[in-house]
Amino acid sequence: MKLTPVLDRLESEEPAALARLMDLLRIPSISTDPAYATECTRAAEWLIADLLSIGFDASLRETPGHPMVVAHHDGPGPHVLFYGHYDVQPIDPLALWTRDPFDPVVEDTAKGQVIRGRGSSDDKGQVMTFIEACRAWKAVHGSLPLKVTVFLEGEEESGSPSLIPFMKENARELTSDIALICDTGLFGEDTPAIITMLRGLLTEELTVTGPSKDLHSGMYGGISMNPIRALSRALAALHDETGHVTVPGFYEGVPEIPADVMAQWQALGFDPQTFLGEAGLSAPAGEADRTPLEQLWARPTCDVNGIWGGYTGEGFKTVLPAQAHAKVSFRLVGQQDPLKIRENFRAFIQSHMPPDCTVGFKGHGASPAAQMATDHPAFEKARVALSDEWPHPAAYIGCGASIPIAGYFKTVLGMDSMLIGFGKDDDAIHSPNEKYDLVSFRKGARSWARILSALAA
Amino acid sequence: MKLTPVLDRLESEEPAALARLMDLLRIPSISTDPAYATECTRAAEWLIADLLSIGFDASLRETPGHPMVVAHHDGPGPHVLFYGHYDVQPIDPLALWTRDPFDPVVEDTAKGQVIRGRGSSDDKGQVMTFIEACRAWKAVHGSLPLKVTVFLEGEEESGSPSLIPFMKENARELTSDIALICDTGLFGEDTPAIITMLRGLLTEELTVTGPSKDLHSGMYGGISMNPIRALSRALAALHDETGHVTVPGFYEGVPEIPADVMAQWQALGFDPQTFLGEAGLSAPAGEADRTPLEQLWARPTCDVNGIWGGYTGEGFKTVLPAQAHAKVSFRLVGQQDPLKIRENFRAFIQSHMPPDCTVGFKGHGASPAAQMATDHPAFEKARVALSDEWPHPAAYIGCGASIPIAGYFKTVLGMDSMLIGFGKDDDAIHSPNEKYDLVSFRKGARSWARILSALAA
Repeated sequence: MKLTPVLDRLESEEPAALARLMDLLRIPSISTDPAYATECTRAAEWLIADLLSIGFDASLRETPGHPMVVAHHDGPGPHVLFYGHYDVQPIDPLALWTRDPFDPVVEDTAKGQVIRGRGSSDDKGQVMTFIEACRAWKAVHGSLPLKVTVFLEGEEESGSPSLIPFMKENARELTSDIALICDTGLFGEDTPAIITMLRGLLTEELTVTGPSKDLHSGMYGGISMNPIRALSRALAALHDETGHVTVPGFYEGVPEIPADVMAQWQALGFDPQTFLGEAGLSAPAGEADRTPLEQLWARPTCDVNGIWGGYTGEGFKTVLPAQAHAKVSFRLVGQQDPLKIRENFRAFIQSHMPPDCTVGFKGHGASPAAQMATDHPAFEKARVALSDEWPHPAAYIGCGASIPIAGYFKTVLGMDSMLIGFGKDDDAIHSPNEKYDLVSFRKGARSWARILSALAA
Repeated sequence: MKLTPVLDRLESEEPAALARLMDLLRIPSISTDPAYATECTRAAEWLIADLLSIGFDASLRETPGHPMVVAHHDGPGPHVLFYGHYDVQPIDPLALWTRDPFDPVVEDTAKGQVIRGRGSSDDKGQVMTFIEACRAWKAVHGSLPLKVTVFLEGEEESGSPSLIPFMKENARELTSDIALICDTGLFGEDTPAIITMLRGLLTEELTVTGPSKDLHSGMYGGISMNPIRALSRALAALHDETGHVTVPGFYEGVPEIPADVMAQWQALGFDPQTFLGEAGLSAPAGEADRTPLEQLWARPTCDVNGIWGGYTGEGFKTVLPAQAHAKVSFRLVGQQDPLKIRENFRAFIQSHMPPDCTVGFKGHGASPAAQMATDHPAFEKARVALSDEWPHPAAYIGCGASIPIAGYFKTVLGMDSMLIGFGKDDDAIHSPNEKYDLVSFRKGARSWARILSALAA
């Protein structure tokens, strides 16, 4: 079956494809906030209707959390499973958005046209690149060049609690020859990428309790332990002066990058000044003895993602709060064991509590790092297909983010995964004013059309 | 003029006095939050109407902030000025209140009846003890035993920005023989107190800025400086292992307590276990080489009163925030210079910023510590009058809180002040479920009736 008319069809149908994406972006499917639960279901239903309309056997599958979307389409070639997620990140701080996060628009910017709105890049826009490629194949040829299962979840931004149970219960239905995961980015504007290693993620919330009630710092100040002071000291102790994480045993299972991979990375000509400059930064802040790309892709990290306690409103209140809180996450690599690190982290924080302070923990998620099977023949086929679409050849790269699904596909279903996406570093995913370049959307759909063709061959 | 019928009148009129206080407590006069500005004015107007009703020449006096209440009543003896404040603290965290903070009620508790509501102790209940004493004198004798000026402000909980300019502009009208300040507490349940030393207060808000926008910790984690990490480290550095504050020059001007005062304090039989136990604490957390009463009354402190940054909602968000914030206050003693400490604090925090982090400051308030003129004859008269009312004799004590007004009366108007109040340590001022014991209200009004009589003699 010919590829060219499929690519042509994508071009002529782009306005309709964009209108569809806008519809999906208008649904505020924030999975982490229970207030938006019905909106998550609405997004799932929208996708099912769309997949049914192009001939998929699509259905909504209930879970204890937000529902799954599972859709099958027959075809002659091998069987691929496409994974994405329809849920989005929260939108705060809302004041920093230039427009309603759920009123998307195509904007002209100095760097070209962008689709602005929450979820445009992470991950609704990316999901639709694949669906649009399938739609074009169907419109032109009345069929797909290979057998396709689409599997979309609605809890990716909230720790995917239902994912593993669902995959176990539906293992036979979901197992395919390879998984295609579209939730990552380009290496550079003109250079597509296939991810070969992903960091794992451990997330913890802690609450330090001091006094039994909020106290007046005039009456109790000095003599009373302040839980913010205890929390600050414990968090400050998580890194040493050279940027290393101090939790005991933290670096167990962290591998050195092989010399050939390091050489390949160096050839990419990554410029940390440009990368950091996009974010208003200038100096790599990770382990002082590691290269910038190692810090980004291959080294474990510890970050405080949220902190709160005491009076945070207008003006001043001289309160000694009863409690102080923080959300802490670790990016993991190699063979680091998330559960062991959780245990060590909790003991470490515990050991830093002064008298009269206790600490409680709530675990949010824990997934190990993943290494892809680049010797699977699909990798080379996809690399060539991507290289045909984009100005520069596709690169095999690492990724600092944690996309636990790749590990789950391997451990639960025994499937290898290819992570291919079209986001850009400046997409502001998880931040105000998230966007997805129109060129990402356009060339993303074309890339999938090519990859489907290549994998069928 | 006889005192006994005045005390009898207070007893018989107590239900009406309580009803008046409840009316005043229902007005949510939160001064620090601009949303409550009209409520502050309403509280001022309520007090003016009440003072007019008992023959004071009372008027509302506009300021750039919340208005002042000034009321005069003629009399034969010396001229006293009574100071209090009608504004109250914010009410958050609202969820911890057992009832609406502005729907006050008299509750039976294991420790006796209490008036529950925001401002009941700090400071509306205390203000009304004085006004009720004046009302009773008027009702019984048709006059007051000495000349009285009532001066109430509405910005005490928000740094009193209008106070000094107002006092300067109205110096002649306000200057009296002595000021009576009712915003403090008893030493113990049965032991009234006159404060002879007050800590000063310096309050600062700081904002640490790292990246130019919120970042995704998967994409940017490790290589990017996190402003929460920078803030935690800077705040953690404010104390050393022995509880001393590390800001350079911080202890300049901190006096040693004279041996005779220390001996007097030791005679009070203060039990830190009981005091701390009320707040769910057990161990003095201040400077390790200082006694608990020194930590409470006579040593300077540094506390973080609020901290916030990143994602603080439900669930988890792996964000690297652009900014992190804290509110920090210092309690000052002796000759410590608030403005010099502000400068040193800012330089100290600045010096703890890593590359790619900047810090900005907003000063909220700065007042030095104050030492009262206990050789003024009014002190001994008031001490005897208080001792007549309460089971145990009145004590001269220190106070950890900062009531800058006493210093202003001295420096701006050349007046000495007596700080006498009837609050208790467990009143939960500035906290949820603030209360004022009914016995504080009752014996407070009787105490003022006695003090007015004593000062007139």
